[in-house]
Amino acid sequence: MHGWIRDLLLVPRSLTGSGVRTTLEYVKEILPDLKVHEIESGLSVFDWEIPNEWNVKDAYIADSEGRRLVDWKVNPLHLVGYSIPFNDVLTRAELEPHLHSDANLPTAIPYVTSYYSRRWGFCLSQNQRDKLGDGPFTVVIDATLERGSLTLADLILPGRSDSEVMFTTYVCHPSMANNELSGPGVLTALADYIGQLSDRWYTYRFVFAPETIGSLAYMSQNLTHLQGNVRAGWVISCVGDERTYSHVMSRLGPNLADSLLLEILDEKKVQYTSYPWGDRGSDERQFSSPGADLPFSSFCRSKYSEFPEYHTSLDDLDFVTPRGLQESLDVLLEVVTRLEQRPRYKVHHPGEPNLGKRGLYPTIGTATSSFSTQTENSGGMLSTHDLTTVLSYCDGDHDAVRIASRTGLPLIGVKATLDLINDQGLVERV
Amino acid sequence: MHGWIRDLLLVPRSLTGSGVRTTLEYVKEILPDLKVHEIESGLSVFDWEIPNEWNVKDAYIADSEGRRLVDWKVNPLHLVGYSIPFNDVLTRAELEPHLHSDANLPTAIPYVTSYYSRRWGFCLSQNQRDKLGDGPFTVVIDATLERGSLTLADLILPGRSDSEVMFTTYVCHPSMANNELSGPGVLTALADYIGQLSDRWYTYRFVFAPETIGSLAYMSQNLTHLQGNVRAGWVISCVGDERTYSHVMSRLGPNLADSLLLEILDEKKVQYTSYPWGDRGSDERQFSSPGADLPFSSFCRSKYSEFPEYHTSLDDLDFVTPRGLQESLDVLLEVVTRLEQRPRYKVHHPGEPNLGKRGLYPTIGTATSSFSTQTENSGGMLSTHDLTTVLSYCDGDHDAVRIASRTGLPLIGVKATLDLINDQGLVERV
Amino acid sequence: MHGWIRDLLLVPRSLTGSGVRTTLEYVKEILPDLKVHEIESGLSVFDWEIPNEWNVKDAYIADSEGRRLVDWKVNPLHLVGYSIPFNDVLTRAELEPHLHSDANLPTAIPYVTSYYSRRWGFCLSQNQRDKLGDGPFTVVIDATLERGSLTLADLILPGRSDSEVMFTTYVCHPSMANNELSGPGVLTALADYIGQLSDRWYTYRFVFAPETIGSLAYMSQNLTHLQGNVRAGWVISCVGDERTYSHVMSRLGPNLADSLLLEILDEKKVQYTSYPWGDRGSDERQFSSPGADLPFSSFCRSKYSEFPEYHTSLDDLDFVTPRGLQESLDVLLEVVTRLEQRPRYKVHHPGEPNLGKRGLYPTIGTATSSFSTQTENSGGMLSTHDLTTVLSYCDGDHDAVRIASRTGLPLIGVKATLDLINDQGLVERV
Repeated sequence: MHGWIRDLLLVPRSLTGSGVRTTLEYVKEILPDLKVHEIESGLSVFDWEIPNEWNVKDAYIADSEGRRLVDWKVNPLHLVGYSIPFNDVLTRAELEPHLHSDANLPTAIPYVTSYYSRRWGFCLSQNQRDKLGDGPFTVVIDATLERGSLTLADLILPGRSDSEVMFTTYVCHPSMANNELSGPGVLTALADYIGQLSDRWYTYRFVFAPETIGSLAYMSQNLTHLQGNVRAGWVISCVGDERTYSHVMSRLGPNLADSLLLEILDEKKVQYTSYPWGDRGSDERQFSSPGADLPFSSFCRSKYSEFPEYHTSLDDLDFVTPRGLQESLDVLLEVVTRLEQRPRYKVHHPGEPNLGKRGLYPTIGTATSSFSTQTENSGGMLSTHDLTTVLSYCDGDHDAVRIASRTGLPLIGVKATLDLINDQGLVERV
Repeated sequence: MHGWIRDLLLVPRSLTGSGVRTTLEYVKEILPDLKVHEIESGLSVFDWEIPNEWNVKDAYIADSEGRRLVDWKVNPLHLVGYSIPFNDVLTRAELEPHLHSDANLPTAIPYVTSYYSRRWGFCLSQNQRDKLGDGPFTVVIDATLERGSLTLADLILPGRSDSEVMFTTYVCHPSMANNELSGPGVLTALADYIGQLSDRWYTYRFVFAPETIGSLAYMSQNLTHLQGNVRAGWVISCVGDERTYSHVMSRLGPNLADSLLLEILDEKKVQYTSYPWGDRGSDERQFSSPGADLPFSSFCRSKYSEFPEYHTSLDDLDFVTPRGLQESLDVLLEVVTRLEQRPRYKVHHPGEPNLGKRGLYPTIGTATSSFSTQTENSGGMLSTHDLTTVLSYCDGDHDAVRIASRTGLPLIGVKATLDLINDQGLVERV
Repeated sequence: MHGWIRDLLLVPRSLTGSGVRTTLEYVKEILPDLKVHEIESGLSVFDWEIPNEWNVKDAYIADSEGRRLVDWKVNPLHLVGYSIPFNDVLTRAELEPHLHSDANLPTAIPYVTSYYSRRWGFCLSQNQRDKLGDGPFTVVIDATLERGSLTLADLILPGRSDSEVMFTTYVCHPSMANNELSGPGVLTALADYIGQLSDRWYTYRFVFAPETIGSLAYMSQNLTHLQGNVRAGWVISCVGDERTYSHVMSRLGPNLADSLLLEILDEKKVQYTSYPWGDRGSDERQFSSPGADLPFSSFCRSKYSEFPEYHTSLDDLDFVTPRGLQESLDVLLEVVTRLEQRPRYKVHHPGEPNLGKRGLYPTIGTATSSFSTQTENSGGMLSTHDLTTVLSYCDGDHDAVRIASRTGLPLIGVKATLDLINDQGLVERV
């Protein structure tokens, strides 16, 4: 994952344009079934409109001798996102209102965008800015901002059930490692892993889209299907550092996606913060909005807006580490494992099934035999009596954890028993 | 209000007849849009029947010299309500079973009715009764009790929404100030006030009807509409004294009407009693009955049945005061204010609306800007980020108070934000 | 009841065959309206199949001189249930694998069955077994196991309502007094008692069926009706001893059947155990299964599996006593009494009914009269005002106990008032 992020770090991503396409093509090399979708500029998406496509060929500030002082080719962060074309010679005073730096982080190039208002600008470190001199400066922005399309991608890994588990991240941030190449990196590895599972119960849906407008566009084209099928979803962002773990609660309180993530973070005994909905800031804003109401939660390491490197060039390959990425992937693998391993079953008929004819019930009935014999293939297997108890909760509502907690039977035994009765065709997964 | 009650005090009201009409015509002078309805005697109303109309021309007990000892023209309370016509000369012994007084309140004329059983009688103070002498007495009741109609009135003040707020009181009690001219007085002032509001969200419905049979008649003709539209309703009775405040809880526990009234009484820090449903006694008996199930509550000052002057001539213009009436009106004005000021909104689309194109979102995105900028017209305005949080609860279920309590955002800011996003057409009130 | 059980003790019952028929014919002598149903072998019942019918003419182990050492005619428990026909001379070693005894209870004949696996065997006390000698032994099982039918019976005692109360027990256990002749004995007495009630609100359904397959067969033929009509049901088993009382909780927690039984056991201040669903073991396994979901609970004295005599010949007429049976019957009579005496009523119309025209309201209204007069026929009768309060809860959801607990009115008064307003036709029972 760290290598992928290194490869993609300097690709000039934005809401639209070739940088997004290059990034998604890279992901498609690893996940060949990824589907890339182009959505035309100008299309109405709920309350929004797909913006014009922005592509940059070159952009720099040069001194009078042609030396590039600030160069987009060195780091795409130097150019304000969606800057309009520009080519002129300016004095320092004329240039000044178009410069962005952060005096508190004198070595950092800040990340600035102006998607929906026509302006131009350059971002540079305070140290650079202090040394710029008086000019005159040649300012060149060789860019196009015209009708085209917005690019996003999804990958669907079908399972035996139509019920879906969804993961989403965004691909519009340039040249920052944690925010946001860690999300695409971890989800690529997760999708690769899930794609190799020989058997999946759930159908898995991965979405890589530009933030906000990309998610809105995706949602607008798939909303009915998503509302009918997604049982749990997560927005994955800023998952590459090692500092802490973070969860953002859904709008109306813990849903399955929240509970499962919190349960895993609890059991891992890692340090984590569960932020309230009011502290959200990524695409859960769209997926969990009223009218959409998808059962989403959000997972981060250090949450966006909460780490000092956030939205600067300091969010780099030192901040994001192989270990940080792997730990995040481990959490999501555990999410998947628990979802897959916690089936809810339903019996076919009213009444107990006939266990005797399937070799699951003692063929001879005595005072003690019939209700305490271990079946042959025990392991974690429960007694025959407890097997009927587990069966009695195969009503489509109880998974193994709920059955164990309701009955006091050991979870391992409940799980083994559910496996057995499922193998025997006594129940169907729902 | 005190002046209106003074004007109406001696109008001889009863379940039916000219006194009710006179009273409603008086109210209609103040509220020209009041609609007066006549409902024919004999009409079936649920389990009841509209009774014959009762009108009195004269009624008295005179001594042998023609001196009126007890005179309906002096005070309508002297005649038992719905007394049948009578004209004869009686001895004291013959008269005695037809007299009603209260030895515990020797100066009070008690209020007695016999709506559904044919009898006649006179009410007088114990002091009067003690001085009556032995007779003979000329007893005259020049009255008619024959087919006619029952009179009631309603006033509908349309708002922008079809959702209704309803207030009801009764107009069948003669010559008592608190019970029941205070209710008509306060509701007349309240309707006058609401009618002058330049803008109303809710539609307001005022009902002035004879108690029980009048409310039943009104309900039977409007039940489906009321059940579909009334969001909160109050029975208003005995609201003119200064002693205390009272609330009567609805049948199945606090509804919106109960909660709002109790919240206001709490905040006013006045002394009040919240009576259980079992202590009810006015038209909540009809409006909250099973099968009707309208979301009603009841508001009084000293509750009917609970003050010594109740149902006697001591319930007069000294007991009811301008200040008592005004304080009650203030409570109901506060009820209206809070209802009007606590809209629930709903967004038009899934996903966040596009705030940028409406000037509500910074057009330039930096690490800190996008999620903490105060918008220009602040005041109590929240940050842009908090504005999106408020928007995310515009799901039709949350009013400002619930949003503030769920998010921890200041109520004033939530309200200002809701105003702003409503003005901007981002949401619609529901 | 003890006499009935004595008469039936040695009838050779099993899942099918003449012993079940003889038992049900005996019950039908007492309950002439009992309907006996025959269900053909081979019929599919949910996941099961009705087994072949088993009938025994004779079965014994004799020594070489023809003396019967183990004789089915002495006690049907001596033969393993559903033993296949057999006739041969065996050595002790050959006989040994077919013998069942219990070294811990050396005087007890254990109860052993092999319904669904073809085998044969004899049960004997350890003492008998120790004295058997070396053989050779003549082993004779003169039995048939062939297509026929399974026999079960039900009795329906219609009430004024289609809502049903159901009691079920089983009739497949041979020669044991508590498990299971106590259930049939107590239910026969209960049905006889209920049949003599001059008036029943509920319809009562009694089912006497072989355990498991009999209940499944009955349920499969009546499931939709039972799901639509049964308001509460109980499985009755092992109700003849004096040691303790037992309840088995339903699958998803206390339903009406559980609550009512527990309330009665609590009030009787007897010693009892409430077992969780996991400890169930009788036909609640079928009636409460997912897909059936009937509102059942289970009642025992010492619960099956929990007493040392369980499933042995020690479960006899000394263990089961007249007093034990009577005490169990008393509990069930109390169940019926409380169900019958706790009607829920519903008013006919919105609004209060007109009480005056029915003589239930004072015809003269004064300050105090109208709301505190006792009606004539008091007893436990409430005031007129409280009568209207009781009426206001006649919404189909509140029985007397809930009304009393919600209003604080005395239960006896609420009940008397409900009787009165029901007699007056003001409400209908639902």
